[in-house]
Amino acid sequence: MEAQKQLVVKSVLDAWNSRIEAADKLFNGLTDEQLQQEIAPGRNRGIYLLGHLTAVHDKMLPLLDFEEQVYPHLDEPFLHKADKTVNTIPSTKELRENWKNINAKLATHFNKLNPTSGFKSTSVSGEDFAKEPHRNRINVVVGRTNHMQYHIGQVALLKK
Amino acid sequence: MEAQKQLVVKSVLDAWNSRIEAADKLFNGLTDEQLQQEIAPGRNRGIYLLGHLTAVHDKMLPLLDFEEQVYPHLDEPFLHKADKTVNTIPSTKELRENWKNINAKLATHFNKLNPTSGFKSTSVSGEDFAKEPHRNRINVVVGRTNHMQYHIGQVALLKK
Repeated sequence: MEAQKQLVVKSVLDAWNSRIEAADKLFNGLTDEQLQQEIAPGRNRGIYLLGHLTAVHDKMLPLLDFEEQVYPHLDEPFLHKADKTVNTIPSTKELRENWKNINAKLATHFNKLNPTSGFKSTSVSGEDFAKEPHRNRINVVVGRTNHMQYHIGQVALLKK
Repeated sequence: MEAQKQLVVKSVLDAWNSRIEAADKLFNGLTDEQLQQEIAPGRNRGIYLLGHLTAVHDKMLPLLDFEEQVYPHLDEPFLHKADKTVNTIPSTKELRENWKNINAKLATHFNKLNPTSGFKSTSVSGEDFAKEPHRNRINVVVGRTNHMQYHIGQVALLKK
């Protein structure tokens, strides 16, 4: 059963890693000019979704008890405000770097976790683990993978 | 550990169920006319994505060793062919019903599975379970949830 549990955790982490890889490939294949386009008329621009995903992944660091958030200045333009309502946002170059850095940090932390014991927060009993899903690391990874996919399907519309 | 394994499986199934619920709400909130629209200029129509998701979920039934596929006639227009390349596709009303039916069937099967033992196919050893991810039920559910999210983010663009 120990082995089975590890495989279930592995399924979830493999999915996260493969979707990050696919997202990287997509963003790398889009020019800065393409990222300035709206994904559909009147909708979010690619650059906003890059910033939004970066901010959401950044906040996974404290949520998973890994470390402090690295780029709190992204919260305002990409989480609290809608696209095209903020005068200045970081450059595309900077956001591309932030995105890579945050995902690399998350990967380093995931690699250090014990696949059997690492996916519940310390000091959370089995019962609390079920009751408080935000304290359940697997729930966070599953939820954030789904969130990424939702927006990546939109960013993909910018491809020629 | 038994309890922990169940909780990990539960995280994955809860995510599937909640995303199906959100997708239902989205499709139910869109009129037949809205589903005829393209999600972005020149891209797939909402109706194609409804058919595509239905066909993919239908094929989960045999993939998960549950039962035969119910609507194999959806493969051609929604998996093998691109949107707007097939002369006639089923009506929106019919596709809406197919979508609900397939997801209800999957839910019934998931509810019957033992959360500890039910998520590997019978006769697959631990090693094969890792090597052959298509025979690993959890991998299938994780992957199909991500696939659904990718397209649901696109369908959401049809909302006013």
